[in-house]
Amino acid sequence: MGHSNQQRKLHRHKTRRRTAPGASPGTLTIDPNAPPPQMRLVVYGPDRLVETESPSPEQLSTPPEGQAVRWLNVDGLGDIDTLQRIGAAFGLHPLALEDVVNVHQRPKVEAYEDHLFIIVRMPIDVPAGTTGDLPQQRLETEQVAICLGRDFVVTFQERPGDCFEPVRRRMQTTNGNIRQRGPDYLAYALIDAAIDAFFPLLEMYGERVEELETEVVDRPEAGQIERIHNLKRNLLTVRRAIWPQRDMINTLLRDDSTLIDAHTRVYFRDCYDHTIQLIDMIETYREVSTGLVDIHLSSISNRMNEVMKVLTIIATIFIPLTFIVGVYGMNFDPAAGRLNMPELGWRYGYPAVMLFMVTIAGGLVLWFRRKGWIGRNRL
Amino acid sequence: MGHSNQQRKLHRHKTRRRTAPGASPGTLTIDPNAPPPQMRLVVYGPDRLVETESPSPEQLSTPPEGQAVRWLNVDGLGDIDTLQRIGAAFGLHPLALEDVVNVHQRPKVEAYEDHLFIIVRMPIDVPAGTTGDLPQQRLETEQVAICLGRDFVVTFQERPGDCFEPVRRRMQTTNGNIRQRGPDYLAYALIDAAIDAFFPLLEMYGERVEELETEVVDRPEAGQIERIHNLKRNLLTVRRAIWPQRDMINTLLRDDSTLIDAHTRVYFRDCYDHTIQLIDMIETYREVSTGLVDIHLSSISNRMNEVMKVLTIIATIFIPLTFIVGVYGMNFDPAAGRLNMPELGWRYGYPAVMLFMVTIAGGLVLWFRRKGWIGRNRL
Amino acid sequence: MGHSNQQRKLHRHKTRRRTAPGASPGTLTIDPNAPPPQMRLVVYGPDRLVETESPSPEQLSTPPEGQAVRWLNVDGLGDIDTLQRIGAAFGLHPLALEDVVNVHQRPKVEAYEDHLFIIVRMPIDVPAGTTGDLPQQRLETEQVAICLGRDFVVTFQERPGDCFEPVRRRMQTTNGNIRQRGPDYLAYALIDAAIDAFFPLLEMYGERVEELETEVVDRPEAGQIERIHNLKRNLLTVRRAIWPQRDMINTLLRDDSTLIDAHTRVYFRDCYDHTIQLIDMIETYREVSTGLVDIHLSSISNRMNEVMKVLTIIATIFIPLTFIVGVYGMNFDPAAGRLNMPELGWRYGYPAVMLFMVTIAGGLVLWFRRKGWIGRNRL
Amino acid sequence: MGHSNQQRKLHRHKTRRRTAPGASPGTLTIDPNAPPPQMRLVVYGPDRLVETESPSPEQLSTPPEGQAVRWLNVDGLGDIDTLQRIGAAFGLHPLALEDVVNVHQRPKVEAYEDHLFIIVRMPIDVPAGTTGDLPQQRLETEQVAICLGRDFVVTFQERPGDCFEPVRRRMQTTNGNIRQRGPDYLAYALIDAAIDAFFPLLEMYGERVEELETEVVDRPEAGQIERIHNLKRNLLTVRRAIWPQRDMINTLLRDDSTLIDAHTRVYFRDCYDHTIQLIDMIETYREVSTGLVDIHLSSISNRMNEVMKVLTIIATIFIPLTFIVGVYGMNFDPAAGRLNMPELGWRYGYPAVMLFMVTIAGGLVLWFRRKGWIGRNRL
Amino acid sequence: MGHSNQQRKLHRHKTRRRTAPGASPGTLTIDPNAPPPQMRLVVYGPDRLVETESPSPEQLSTPPEGQAVRWLNVDGLGDIDTLQRIGAAFGLHPLALEDVVNVHQRPKVEAYEDHLFIIVRMPIDVPAGTTGDLPQQRLETEQVAICLGRDFVVTFQERPGDCFEPVRRRMQTTNGNIRQRGPDYLAYALIDAAIDAFFPLLEMYGERVEELETEVVDRPEAGQIERIHNLKRNLLTVRRAIWPQRDMINTLLRDDSTLIDAHTRVYFRDCYDHTIQLIDMIETYREVSTGLVDIHLSSISNRMNEVMKVLTIIATIFIPLTFIVGVYGMNFDPAAGRLNMPELGWRYGYPAVMLFMVTIAGGLVLWFRRKGWIGRNRL
Repeated sequence: MGHSNQQRKLHRHKTRRRTAPGASPGTLTIDPNAPPPQMRLVVYGPDRLVETESPSPEQLSTPPEGQAVRWLNVDGLGDIDTLQRIGAAFGLHPLALEDVVNVHQRPKVEAYEDHLFIIVRMPIDVPAGTTGDLPQQRLETEQVAICLGRDFVVTFQERPGDCFEPVRRRMQTTNGNIRQRGPDYLAYALIDAAIDAFFPLLEMYGERVEELETEVVDRPEAGQIERIHNLKRNLLTVRRAIWPQRDMINTLLRDDSTLIDAHTRVYFRDCYDHTIQLIDMIETYREVSTGLVDIHLSSISNRMNEVMKVLTIIATIFIPLTFIVGVYGMNFDPAAGRLNMPELGWRYGYPAVMLFMVTIAGGLVLWFRRKGWIGRNRL
Repeated sequence: MGHSNQQRKLHRHKTRRRTAPGASPGTLTIDPNAPPPQMRLVVYGPDRLVETESPSPEQLSTPPEGQAVRWLNVDGLGDIDTLQRIGAAFGLHPLALEDVVNVHQRPKVEAYEDHLFIIVRMPIDVPAGTTGDLPQQRLETEQVAICLGRDFVVTFQERPGDCFEPVRRRMQTTNGNIRQRGPDYLAYALIDAAIDAFFPLLEMYGERVEELETEVVDRPEAGQIERIHNLKRNLLTVRRAIWPQRDMINTLLRDDSTLIDAHTRVYFRDCYDHTIQLIDMIETYREVSTGLVDIHLSSISNRMNEVMKVLTIIATIFIPLTFIVGVYGMNFDPAAGRLNMPELGWRYGYPAVMLFMVTIAGGLVLWFRRKGWIGRNRL
Repeated sequence: MGHSNQQRKLHRHKTRRRTAPGASPGTLTIDPNAPPPQMRLVVYGPDRLVETESPSPEQLSTPPEGQAVRWLNVDGLGDIDTLQRIGAAFGLHPLALEDVVNVHQRPKVEAYEDHLFIIVRMPIDVPAGTTGDLPQQRLETEQVAICLGRDFVVTFQERPGDCFEPVRRRMQTTNGNIRQRGPDYLAYALIDAAIDAFFPLLEMYGERVEELETEVVDRPEAGQIERIHNLKRNLLTVRRAIWPQRDMINTLLRDDSTLIDAHTRVYFRDCYDHTIQLIDMIETYREVSTGLVDIHLSSISNRMNEVMKVLTIIATIFIPLTFIVGVYGMNFDPAAGRLNMPELGWRYGYPAVMLFMVTIAGGLVLWFRRKGWIGRNRL
Repeated sequence: MGHSNQQRKLHRHKTRRRTAPGASPGTLTIDPNAPPPQMRLVVYGPDRLVETESPSPEQLSTPPEGQAVRWLNVDGLGDIDTLQRIGAAFGLHPLALEDVVNVHQRPKVEAYEDHLFIIVRMPIDVPAGTTGDLPQQRLETEQVAICLGRDFVVTFQERPGDCFEPVRRRMQTTNGNIRQRGPDYLAYALIDAAIDAFFPLLEMYGERVEELETEVVDRPEAGQIERIHNLKRNLLTVRRAIWPQRDMINTLLRDDSTLIDAHTRVYFRDCYDHTIQLIDMIETYREVSTGLVDIHLSSISNRMNEVMKVLTIIATIFIPLTFIVGVYGMNFDPAAGRLNMPELGWRYGYPAVMLFMVTIAGGLVLWFRRKGWIGRNRL
Repeated sequence: MGHSNQQRKLHRHKTRRRTAPGASPGTLTIDPNAPPPQMRLVVYGPDRLVETESPSPEQLSTPPEGQAVRWLNVDGLGDIDTLQRIGAAFGLHPLALEDVVNVHQRPKVEAYEDHLFIIVRMPIDVPAGTTGDLPQQRLETEQVAICLGRDFVVTFQERPGDCFEPVRRRMQTTNGNIRQRGPDYLAYALIDAAIDAFFPLLEMYGERVEELETEVVDRPEAGQIERIHNLKRNLLTVRRAIWPQRDMINTLLRDDSTLIDAHTRVYFRDCYDHTIQLIDMIETYREVSTGLVDIHLSSISNRMNEVMKVLTIIATIFIPLTFIVGVYGMNFDPAAGRLNMPELGWRYGYPAVMLFMVTIAGGLVLWFRRKGWIGRNRL
């Protein structure tokens, strides 16, 4: 439990890191624990692809020649000055910048005069290969802010490490869609990659649901309710990240902004479908999990019933017998009267009483069997 | 449980078979276990009906003469080349083709420039005649992709075997609606057949609900909660397949695409009605199943109460009696004092104490009866 | 339970009687057990009223002279030919005729070129006078199909016996609304009669809810949960029949069809109100019933608690006493040592130990009373 | 319970009093137990206020001179003739009159050609001063029908006694809003008074919820679940009366009828706010009540656990002890062998075995304490 | 509990303080316990900032020269005259003034001819630094009424002390947004501050949820259900304050009133986002809390099971043993027959029976272990 507690501590710490209530809008409040920004600028077009690590301020503010698109990726939000310099270089709105550092935003899209500001969330730290045997940890999601302009895309991530590698690989291919098209397509590709990253996660949860189903039915154990609860809680976290994503993409689909090409919109429709599919999976797993709680509680009751029944049956059989042996343990004086426990002096008194007790025990067992209390599968 | 586990394994395996996260849109990822495609081309019109198994590429790409309609049915999605050749021959959009092989789509309709792309789902493996006595298996549905063009219908199924036989039979009749009308009517007939295939399934579930109701009330058993859960889970699967179907057909009804004739729309309205009726059945069975969980839990409690009551009544009657016989088993020396258990030496001491105990037992029984603990149907 | 099982069998049998999946639309599938059609034609107008039992085909297809309205009522759907003849005589659409024989439709209205096709449902077999003491039977509803044309109304019922008698009586009055107005008013009157027939039923259910409330609180019994379940299930059936009725009447209210007079629409508004009132009653009873399950489960727990408490109190009082008498039943030899059970030889040993035990029992009773385990109404 | 049963009888009787199913629309069915109508006509304007008890038919049908408004209030609906005479005098629609006597209407507004017909509901019999200590009675609401014409307001109540006294008092003030404005303002004032009458009721329920919360936590008792149920049921009754009121006022707000002045609409907006506030209170109390059921059930379980634990702890301590004293009550003959219960003849056998038993008892107590079964607040 | 009771009394007292039912609209009903109004007038503009405590009536009614904005803040609503004087000075509508003193309004916005009337709610009495260890108190919220005119903002608070300090501080900065812009921006800043004040509160509730989760799983105790209930109840209070806030801001966003500048609307969008985020937190915590009730009840059952199992296992082992020692305590006379308890006279009778009993006890323990009743974590 120690690890888990520590993780919760971290979580607590983080949630408290936000702009103070009542602060002036546009105020950038930096989490002191946030990693320093690492920038990577990619300038690309149908005919070129130039990558620059930690570009100089000049490189940032100089638009490339020709039809090229600039993609600036920023990992880490730990430095106000850098962020403000980037904001100035690309003309980002102060409220957008505030949302960049306020890392608990829900997915959304906001139109500013000459750029769209998009928030998506992606899962963290789910190694691709692991399935099913993950520890019972709390899931977290990371905020990615995407600023889409006429000829640039700026992405801000909370920390290094993301799910955009496939996009970077596809960008290497000269005649791929990304290289041929504008920044709107890149934005699409990034959003799609973030959404797709939830699929392996949900498949893992799907398997966990299956496992729990088998276990809850076959081997009811005390800790299962907490595992179901943990699963439901993680599903709730994914749900909070995905549901608003649907609205966000829907807004992009219907938006009449000229920043998004009609041709790219077809791809966003595909992306919307994926979101719907995710929501469908989430809601199914949630509903099944809720059913598991019922089964678990019913299993506990059944187990308890089984235990109680076996034990009380044993008790019930022996209670009358113990009474009988108690009777013949009484010290009435047979000499005082003819009716005073003459059995004690009978020749076959002891065997007779033993036989009598066997008969009673057998009768009770038969009665229990007829009532269905002894036997398989009856409650 | 072995069979069930294996089935789950299969299920797991399958759900993991999808396009890798972040892959370029339009990428076809083939499940290596998918069966190879089997094609069957039917060219028909009011005056002819020609069927060709495994048509050659030329036959695919040559539009027939006159007013004929081409229906290409593909069973099995295990070969990229074949699929791409078909896509090229009929001018299908790459995103549509991707959805064809991505077999976990929800029912939907998407309009591309010159064709409609429709996903429906149909149940698998429910032999027509079986009712009620089916094993407790997990239901699965199969995806059918329907591409409806100006003069063709292409259908992609995951594997051989479908619910379209009645449509094929009706197609033989020269003056049937199918032969007389265009590809939109064929698409309607196929969608309707897929939806109708859920009716026997739901009727079977309806009967299973009835059976469970009778059993849960009459013969409460430990495994029933799992059977109710399994039923609810299958209903959930059907629900996931049917609910989006409603939206899909609604879109077709309101769509202003010229690919669907106004006359055919009347038939889609009928189809919409069937979907609503299915949804109505599903929701009713779901609600009744949920009520069954309550009854089941209440039955368990009642059974438990009955067991506990009988057993504790027996215990309670004998506890005071055992105390009494214990009293007369004490070894106080009657010789030491007049008050030291003089009963032991009385002439009728033993019969008197036996009578006393019978009286106590009878009194307790009477008291229990008056409190209503002994008798029928009282809790 | 035998009767109930048989009833369920019937129910099962019936639900399976529908057009085979994938059959051509417009196919009439007749239930072989359906009663043969009995026709009754009423030709009426402000100045006349002519009724004909089993009219000849000529009578059916000849429109009456003048402004008269024809009302053909058909009881029983057991003959395809008759139904098709009627369909031809009044120009009914094949899809409408298919819906007539497919008796599990939800209430709906569909506009065909020159007639409206309306489905309503009415309750069966609820004798007007009975209240509250009805057996625990499963409720069923009967489908009534109403075809409303320019100068005719055709009604199809599943079997003889309906709730239209009051309409027939009002039709006798020369200056009643029905005689003065067109077929749309007759259709209104019939729909209203079908809806009104649910009121006595729901009032009966209301009373049953009241009874169950009293019983569940005053005399908790094992079978009550099944009675609540049965009630909820019947309410669910009524709900399925009434909810779509609301949409249906709403469609009629807003429809711009010329078949319904603006003046008649005012009456449909009244009818709509009745539907809302029924829905209100249904939802209330459903909610109260759900609350009853909680009370029932709580009552079971309370009863169980009461039983367990009384019994364990008795056990707990006697357990220490039985131990004490056991102590003095030990056979230690007083002669072997001074401390070996000298009490056995004391003069007042027996009375002393009896007094000691009475004290202990009294102390325990007092302690239980102070803890509140003995007394009224405490848990 | 007797009073309550009688009240339910009354309730039952009343609900059955409605127009027979299938009766002609506009039929007035009078409840034979309804009190006879008492009329009170108020003619008022900025400059006058004339009240007439039981006005003559002429007084009813003669419109007053000048700009005066007529308010006819009718208490009691027990006489068809009177009601029809009033209907004729003010030109009320037959369907409106039918709704007047059909006293189980939901709040609604209906526009007829030259008058608005409004149904509101007000609570009955809640004496203003009582709070919290009311008996557990079933709440009922009374229907008030308001007909608003160009220069008149007619109100129909089920029985004498209403919540309109404040309105009558305000009417006495010459320069009050009511006297200065038209009939629409009077209608507003009456509706507002009816809605406001629910506030003291809901505040009382709010207090009852608070009391139940305290009691359920501090003194769990068997009858509480029924009290919670009764509270929920009354809240359901209020809810049924208030929710449609919201729609009704909303309709009035948006209605383009010329019968309601734009200036008066501002006041209706205020009235709408009050309804929303009532709904908010109702929903909150309902939700809290539902939570109370959980607490109550949990309290029962906890109490039961406490009882069971104490009792079984006592039993468990004495069970091994009773076994030990049983051992030394065996009658093996020490003379038959050296190993045959030599303890019986030991010098300190008895004290030793007593000490042994004290040790065992103490050990068990310690073990229980360490497991947390003995001590405060642990489950 | 004493403190809590007193607090509830206060609560009760307050809720009863509202305008009497049926009172004339616009009536100001003052709570006699309300603190007297304290006024503070701030006149500001880009070039000046003048604050006046308790301004004179002339100062109130004289509009400042130039482009200055007047902000009048009123703490305490305990004096009718003062309020009416303010209302007259700023031209506030009587219905608005009534809503000012009626302090149980839901958040809303209402447009009057020349001013907007806005109600927001803010939390009371949550010291900024406390987290997690707050007493189990009932949360309350305070109503703030904001009147936004062409060149003024008037705010009414129930009592001194608010969450507007940050706004006052920002107002000191000459070139801050507030000083540069009109009264609409001030209104935004105040609303935003009120909403932001809920964040620390909800973060505290979030931590409390985390704590409760850990406790409920690790240390189930009797009082937890009440703590969960209290948490849920407070979340319900916040929910009631926040949900309508969303609608209110949405109305402001879409309103076409000229009182709010297009530029300020961008900031309201930000504010809307915060509300959505709050709602998201509330709903998540509510759902998790509901899950905690399940875990708590399951934990109680598990604990109970554990207790019952250990105790009944001990009982079951000793019951047959006690029977056996009872057998050898019987007083049959070995001399009366060869079969009369010859064991008593055997040489190793006593050790043999002791061994026999050890064997039985061991066998039972083994059987229990194999059934899984003894061991870790099994139910």
